[in-house]
Amino acid sequence: MVIEMTARFVGVDWGTSNRRAYVYGAGGEVLRQAEDGQGMLASRGRFAAALDELLQQLEVSAETPVLMSGMVGSAQGWREAPYLDPQVPLLDMPQHLVHLDGARFIVPGYRQREGLADVMRGEETQLLGLVVNGLRDGWVVLPGTHCKWVYLKNGCIQRWSTYMTGEMFAMLSRDGTLAPLLEGGADVAEAFEAGLALARRGLPLTNTLFSVRAGVVGGTLPAAHARSLVSGLLIGSEFVAMAASRHAGDEITLLASLSLCAPYQRAARSFGITAKVADSHALYASAMRHLYQEGKNHAA
Amino acid sequence: MVIEMTARFVGVDWGTSNRRAYVYGAGGEVLRQAEDGQGMLASRGRFAAALDELLQQLEVSAETPVLMSGMVGSAQGWREAPYLDPQVPLLDMPQHLVHLDGARFIVPGYRQREGLADVMRGEETQLLGLVVNGLRDGWVVLPGTHCKWVYLKNGCIQRWSTYMTGEMFAMLSRDGTLAPLLEGGADVAEAFEAGLALARRGLPLTNTLFSVRAGVVGGTLPAAHARSLVSGLLIGSEFVAMAASRHAGDEITLLASLSLCAPYQRAARSFGITAKVADSHALYASAMRHLYQEGKNHAA
Repeated sequence: MVIEMTARFVGVDWGTSNRRAYVYGAGGEVLRQAEDGQGMLASRGRFAAALDELLQQLEVSAETPVLMSGMVGSAQGWREAPYLDPQVPLLDMPQHLVHLDGARFIVPGYRQREGLADVMRGEETQLLGLVVNGLRDGWVVLPGTHCKWVYLKNGCIQRWSTYMTGEMFAMLSRDGTLAPLLEGGADVAEAFEAGLALARRGLPLTNTLFSVRAGVVGGTLPAAHARSLVSGLLIGSEFVAMAASRHAGDEITLLASLSLCAPYQRAARSFGITAKVADSHALYASAMRHLYQEGKNHAA
Repeated sequence: MVIEMTARFVGVDWGTSNRRAYVYGAGGEVLRQAEDGQGMLASRGRFAAALDELLQQLEVSAETPVLMSGMVGSAQGWREAPYLDPQVPLLDMPQHLVHLDGARFIVPGYRQREGLADVMRGEETQLLGLVVNGLRDGWVVLPGTHCKWVYLKNGCIQRWSTYMTGEMFAMLSRDGTLAPLLEGGADVAEAFEAGLALARRGLPLTNTLFSVRAGVVGGTLPAAHARSLVSGLLIGSEFVAMAASRHAGDEITLLASLSLCAPYQRAARSFGITAKVADSHALYASAMRHLYQEGKNHAA
């Protein structure tokens, strides 16, 4: 007996530098997946060709419906998908898909204009996956180059903050005063804790970063501790900001690869916060199924 | 009538990338000066030759006494001059000159081990100049790559904080998310003020920096405002930290070139703080004269 696995649609998480694509079956199950470095920057000026190549690689026909999320919908992407305002419930996203051509759609991001300005493109789709799976309230943290702390309320994005944590760490490691101290080096638990404690002091980052160098030069900090200390300092400041916000809480849901989540789990313990890790691939599939089904109904 | 201008000694402010040298006469008056890119990094491994070249350029004999301050006395410099502790009054620095050879001496820096670790090499000499000229108490701010806020008490360095303000701005301008927004661009007074206001909110820098990009992308901030906004944000956080410290005050003395001091003067006005600008060249001369005279007495 041959069970036919028919590709129903494709979901592409098309970011700045990389893209990840999934072929979904009728029930939303993942039939195949692919990942490559043809992100928005590499595909600029040839998005249609870059998508064709991807579909061939996934062995699906060019007519297969495609849903794309992430930077592909930015002003520098294939087609700009206007930002949604936080008032739009995540479950209503299917009503706001941007039709590209044929059966191809771009998922819009969100923009925060009140309070501190912020934007997201890509993360909203994973958040939708959480809501589809019943998590409608509370803090969701998406670690990475630009780590996002999102406060959900009744299935809406109530408010969020983006921290350039990964980018700042990479920038400090590349050149400048701290670079020699940040390259390589083992993970030192006590230094990470010291970084969290330093973050709690609430001093300007330009000051605390210099103190790392000064501690090593002045003989009060082992050079091998610098890397973990800076990691704790940057991540710790995110927890401090959450605790000081209007929506302070004691529970977060982490949404990223396990290696990215690990230091956040450790920091959470130190701050007395319960951290659960969600499966971002499964959530993306849930979100895509919702967008495909509801988007179809909406278009019909 | 010929007035003889005899070189009595030479002072060299020998930093990481540049050095500045002055030939002083009997009364401490500047007879000649020179500046070049033979800083510690360029002179490494050939400090003696690099000094000989400098003395020739200044047209003084190789036997002229030389006092050197700055990174030349660091572990990566010519000879490491052990750090002084803040308990050592600035006026006592002559007792701690490190004898190199002949009539050549290196001025030691200071190290802070209590509270947040910090170090200085070079700034202590300008601070000594202030004390020699009667300023023994209050806040002194030395803007630059690594801006230092020093609290003087009875002619001692009571406590200080270094902010990697210039380095952070340069790093953000070089590459990454904000770089395209920071290159060039005019000075926008209202954006600088907005940056100061943003600093007052006390949010993590990784968050506020991202909000600049998000504001431009989301259409709430003109791209031409980004540069001044980030400048105000970084400098503002220094004033916020001072105001929150144990030694909060309403008066500072600025010690740097006029162009470096300008944004600090503007920020000071906004924070209701009186800022006086001191002449760093004149203070360096005062300090050098004190070090030379008292160092001689001490050695005798």
